[in-house]
Amino acid sequence: MKNVLGLRCIDCHKELPVEAGTYTCPGCGSQGGILDVEYDYPEINRMTSREQVAQSKDYSIFRYLPFLPIRQNAALYEQRSAYLRVGWSPLYKPPGLGKSLGMSNLYIKDDGQNPTASLKDRASIIAVIKAVEEKAPTVACSSTGNAASSLAGSAAAMGLKSVIFVPSRAPQGKVAQLLIFGATVISVQGSYEDTFRLSAEAIARFGWYNRNAAINPYLVEGKKTVALEIAEQLNWEVPDWVALSVGDGCTIAGVWKGFKDLYLAGWIDRLPKVLGVQSTGCCPLVDAFLEDRPWRPAEEKTLADSIAVGVPRNPDKALQAVRESGGLMVAVPDEAILDAMRELGRTSGIFGEPAGVTGMAGLKVLVNNGIIGTAEKVVAIVTGNGLKDVRNAIKAVGEPLKVEPSLQKLMAKLEGRL
Amino acid sequence: MKNVLGLRCIDCHKELPVEAGTYTCPGCGSQGGILDVEYDYPEINRMTSREQVAQSKDYSIFRYLPFLPIRQNAALYEQRSAYLRVGWSPLYKPPGLGKSLGMSNLYIKDDGQNPTASLKDRASIIAVIKAVEEKAPTVACSSTGNAASSLAGSAAAMGLKSVIFVPSRAPQGKVAQLLIFGATVISVQGSYEDTFRLSAEAIARFGWYNRNAAINPYLVEGKKTVALEIAEQLNWEVPDWVALSVGDGCTIAGVWKGFKDLYLAGWIDRLPKVLGVQSTGCCPLVDAFLEDRPWRPAEEKTLADSIAVGVPRNPDKALQAVRESGGLMVAVPDEAILDAMRELGRTSGIFGEPAGVTGMAGLKVLVNNGIIGTAEKVVAIVTGNGLKDVRNAIKAVGEPLKVEPSLQKLMAKLEGRL
Repeated sequence: MKNVLGLRCIDCHKELPVEAGTYTCPGCGSQGGILDVEYDYPEINRMTSREQVAQSKDYSIFRYLPFLPIRQNAALYEQRSAYLRVGWSPLYKPPGLGKSLGMSNLYIKDDGQNPTASLKDRASIIAVIKAVEEKAPTVACSSTGNAASSLAGSAAAMGLKSVIFVPSRAPQGKVAQLLIFGATVISVQGSYEDTFRLSAEAIARFGWYNRNAAINPYLVEGKKTVALEIAEQLNWEVPDWVALSVGDGCTIAGVWKGFKDLYLAGWIDRLPKVLGVQSTGCCPLVDAFLEDRPWRPAEEKTLADSIAVGVPRNPDKALQAVRESGGLMVAVPDEAILDAMRELGRTSGIFGEPAGVTGMAGLKVLVNNGIIGTAEKVVAIVTGNGLKDVRNAIKAVGEPLKVEPSLQKLMAKLEGRL
Repeated sequence: MKNVLGLRCIDCHKELPVEAGTYTCPGCGSQGGILDVEYDYPEINRMTSREQVAQSKDYSIFRYLPFLPIRQNAALYEQRSAYLRVGWSPLYKPPGLGKSLGMSNLYIKDDGQNPTASLKDRASIIAVIKAVEEKAPTVACSSTGNAASSLAGSAAAMGLKSVIFVPSRAPQGKVAQLLIFGATVISVQGSYEDTFRLSAEAIARFGWYNRNAAINPYLVEGKKTVALEIAEQLNWEVPDWVALSVGDGCTIAGVWKGFKDLYLAGWIDRLPKVLGVQSTGCCPLVDAFLEDRPWRPAEEKTLADSIAVGVPRNPDKALQAVRESGGLMVAVPDEAILDAMRELGRTSGIFGEPAGVTGMAGLKVLVNNGIIGTAEKVVAIVTGNGLKDVRNAIKAVGEPLKVEPSLQKLMAKLEGRL
């Protein structure tokens, strides 16, 4: 990996070499400091270019291979016999949604279109590749659901075993996916915090490959590909804002890392502001941001299960990302999240899960407040598909019209509805 | 549309011009004869070529625009502001699945990766485009679920209204999708046959654009794009067999039409055999095929809701497709379908709904019988994503391991399991 210089601790800035088993900075904090992957940008530019990427027929995250901390052998990934097709999700500019929000330059990046239906596939495929590089036969993680199903899916495709820890509240759709993918699924009767802790203990005990995104510095690198794609899909004209939901903090950190990498490589000439959105029912990072203080654990009282994270595992990377970008954070109530699900579906034909549309819900607040202008170029990332959490979708939309099979009865029921 | 010659009745072979409102042959049968779209293949070859398609950066069904019966203005479709990204689903060659089935040349076309998570998106986007061409503000259909959600999704993206008729048994995930997409959803308290009849009456009464796939000859043309993609993804080397599930019969007819179009245009030099699979709980077409007699209505006793079609609407096109291809039909019990869900997930990281994996379940039978050779090149199409029907997935896989948040308790539970 000539493209990678090493790992750097985001707290003490110490540099560490890339080595199997090195996930955190041993000197920092009780669980080790969070590491960041550092690249050799001139080397990346020797390996690829905007023009070369434009010619690539690989419409997956591997089109950006020189920006990834994995073995740089394209032939490994090209045949796609053991890799799910992750990435290159569509970037839409839905006219109906723009009109509905009064915005003239609004894009939706639908990452629910990944193989296991969430953005997390971008991280999990990297985890599985690193596990293979390190010859680990089993991968493990704790997750509110999406990281889990994506890890189990990518592991299955690659022939690895997976052990997954989910909190008992994880939605049925996500758990069913895991079991279908042949994972050993541990439903922890407790909070996400309990789940994370148990997974960490078990991973240490059994020596499984650790896919916990905050701890494993390579996963943010997978997530950043969503930013690389947004930039390329916008013809390298960077948006003013990128809006998305925040739970553990890894995804927003990944988005920021992606844009920074492109900027440092000279592929884009400015950086977007990042808008991080949480639910008012669980917003430890929004509170820390707005009150400019360290984060404090919060309750997990939101239906947006993917971001119901009271003890975020990557708070510093997330807060740094928003601050460095000159961006903002905002919390929205669950009702606004359900509203956003309906509005996105009705105007755009896109079905997002609650956490998937939370970025859009927050964006709406800032546009209504005049903080984000109606002509600014904004990308809202939909991080997961609504099919993963049908129970909450039903909360948002209610039940269909029940009719006996008779035209007369139908016409009576339809009166005034169409 | 210089590429289209006209419509031809599959029963009396009469030719009809392409006109708004012409869906069926008025002379044939009680509901009108089924029509087929006929193309001017030399004209198609003037408009495009294998080489030109290879250069296309449009990774959606529109890369094959000259093979589609819609306005031939590429600029209309390219900007993707009002169209969901339909098509170009991944074609995998999963090593684990090949090993598990003892096959050396097995491919999976995962059409659950379409925007609303089923192959039906290919037909619905055409329906919506035809509705716009005919200036119809409302589209309607009856469906066991997938055609419905895909129509509602494409209609929402395009700013059209949709009215959807589903049988009361349609799974929650599919109904929730519809409602999220802003459709008026009529849950008909009866069978699919009742649902179809009521939708036909209401469509005639209200003048909505008719998306019922058997009746509308353009929809099979959308479905055929799955065959065009398979051919291109295999570098125009045609598989020996293509296996998929059969309900109404439109999808298998579409697959066959796609390969025939390519053959008649001179893009491929031979045709595959088509394997159509139903559940033993509802197999009117398999019975008709195997006993070489006209089909008879059947009960709808299968958990594979998408193909629980006792009165298929396109039986002749389906049976013609299988016979012309020299292919076969076979029925498998629901247990074999649940088995296939597990096997596909565990070996490949692909989560199919029951009807989505039925083709693979049937394939397994014919390979075990020696009718399909282990070295033959076979593509099994997964027609829909398992997230649409989580209840049946849970039937297939059971529940996760429930554990208190304690390493000791976990280790006790895991003993002997890993």
